[in-house]
Amino acid sequence: MIEGDKFNHSFTVSQNVYSGFIDVFNDRNPLHTDSNWATANGFKGKVMHGNILNGFISFFVGECLPVKNVIIYTQHIRFSQPVYLDDALDFSAEITGVFESVNTYEFKFTFRNKEEKRVAYGTIQIGLLT
Amino acid sequence: MIEGDKFNHSFTVSQNVYSGFIDVFNDRNPLHTDSNWATANGFKGKVMHGNILNGFISFFVGECLPVKNVIIYTQHIRFSQPVYLDDALDFSAEITGVFESVNTYEFKFTFRNKEEKRVAYGTIQIGLLT
Repeated sequence: MIEGDKFNHSFTVSQNVYSGFIDVFNDRNPLHTDSNWATANGFKGKVMHGNILNGFISFFVGECLPVKNVIIYTQHIRFSQPVYLDDALDFSAEITGVFESVNTYEFKFTFRNKEEKRVAYGTIQIGLLT
Repeated sequence: MIEGDKFNHSFTVSQNVYSGFIDVFNDRNPLHTDSNWATANGFKGKVMHGNILNGFISFFVGECLPVKNVIIYTQHIRFSQPVYLDDALDFSAEITGVFESVNTYEFKFTFRNKEEKRVAYGTIQIGLLT
């Protein structure tokens, strides 16, 4: 892995992902579970939990890199647009920093929806276990 | 909610949470699923996914605050110590900034394990829907 390496993956916030996230973490805030409440607050429908996207990042780091000996050090995410049920998101990430002396890699990432709106973006730092 | 307000909650990375997270997000990296691999890399056992803690943060914001009209803007987390299966974590958060003109609140949070080691910490910014 070298600076400039790019990665892409598609993630869908399916009914299974949405229901499963609620089953595991019990966040039933009305923004996420009550369509009427969400639309009364100006959204198109129930807004998906932002931390579902952090779960997708777990999959990216754990399963989509060319190496398996990885561990996440830090994660920073900004949620810039709402994500709705069944939204398909294009995830892209790029290695923006390599700190070889400490086996650390920095990625910048973006999630875009099918309207090409950037719904979330941020930074991940991972270490390689040696 | 005012600056200095403090919140506490206990979360346990139970077998149900761990298995449920894997079912939803499919991150089966050996660090998280192969005890032998994890111990060979210097850990006491399988290391829990850091993003399980981000799911706990979803619950905190959505369910533990005195108001329900909340949405997460940004989240920053640093993972400083490994978390293992069945670890009970003490989560504490404090409001460290209130930006009334934009209805935004900043929290600093910490997760500690039963050995009182800080396993993760960071910052959350939320907005109030008006």
